[in-house]
Amino acid sequence: MVRELKITPIKNGTVIDHITSGLALDVLRIINVQSLDKDSTVSVAIRVRSGKLGWKDIVKVENMELSPRKVNAIALIAPTATISIIRDFQVQEKRPVDLPDTIVGVVTCPNPSCISNQGEPIESEFRVTRRRPVVLTCVYCERTMDDFLAHLA
Amino acid sequence: MVRELKITPIKNGTVIDHITSGLALDVLRIINVQSLDKDSTVSVAIRVRSGKLGWKDIVKVENMELSPRKVNAIALIAPTATISIIRDFQVQEKRPVDLPDTIVGVVTCPNPSCISNQGEPIESEFRVTRRRPVVLTCVYCERTMDDFLAHLA
Repeated sequence: MVRELKITPIKNGTVIDHITSGLALDVLRIINVQSLDKDSTVSVAIRVRSGKLGWKDIVKVENMELSPRKVNAIALIAPTATISIIRDFQVQEKRPVDLPDTIVGVVTCPNPSCISNQGEPIESEFRVTRRRPVVLTCVYCERTMDDFLAHLA
Repeated sequence: MVRELKITPIKNGTVIDHITSGLALDVLRIINVQSLDKDSTVSVAIRVRSGKLGWKDIVKVENMELSPRKVNAIALIAPTATISIIRDFQVQEKRPVDLPDTIVGVVTCPNPSCISNQGEPIESEFRVTRRRPVVLTCVYCERTMDDFLAHLA
């Protein structure tokens, strides 16, 4: 039991793999673990050896499928991540996280004078103006940003 | 691989089991994961079924043994936890966390006027004046406290 912590397979849920090592706790923050079902086991592995990335993190959550906004937030901070949806113990779908051309309501504009930061009923909105690495441009004030962790909405 | 996230046994390290469910991330904060070796895998399981507690969390850290202060901090927030030390794949020692009679440098006094909060070269110090549930009494100002999470040093 102690010698080998074997995490049982999940019937339904989501596995987020190939997360940039060290970012699993930020992914947990995006998922908002506190908001999940009281009986959903969440498993996290930080700094796991990975052939592809050298080191990676993994997050596995029972009884949860990610909203498109949460996938976008994960894609911004951990663009190498893959997301697998598990239903009835089977992998239904496995795909890299991917950004749409426009990101709405996921990060806040770093420009404090931007109209999206004035308490108006306006959601933040950015165009993806570069992809590797990602740069976003605010559709309201044209401010660009490339550091997303501190600005998650 | 996805169906069963099997966490490999660790050669050397620490398993903190029977953590009150929901407190694993606070235990991680006490451990200060960022300060560990860059090749230490950290595994966390949140809301795992447990016969004894109903639900529990587990934290497993490679290549780390906890300092007595960190054990005291864990004992304050998660008094049901057990700590197993693994050396060369064997459990060397398994014990419940336990509080000494005096707690030094682990939590700060909630009394802002306490001399231990005045920037003097004095470490916080508390007597354990009740054990179930734990109540601490500051040796300097006699302020009592029973909520430790917000006051971890």
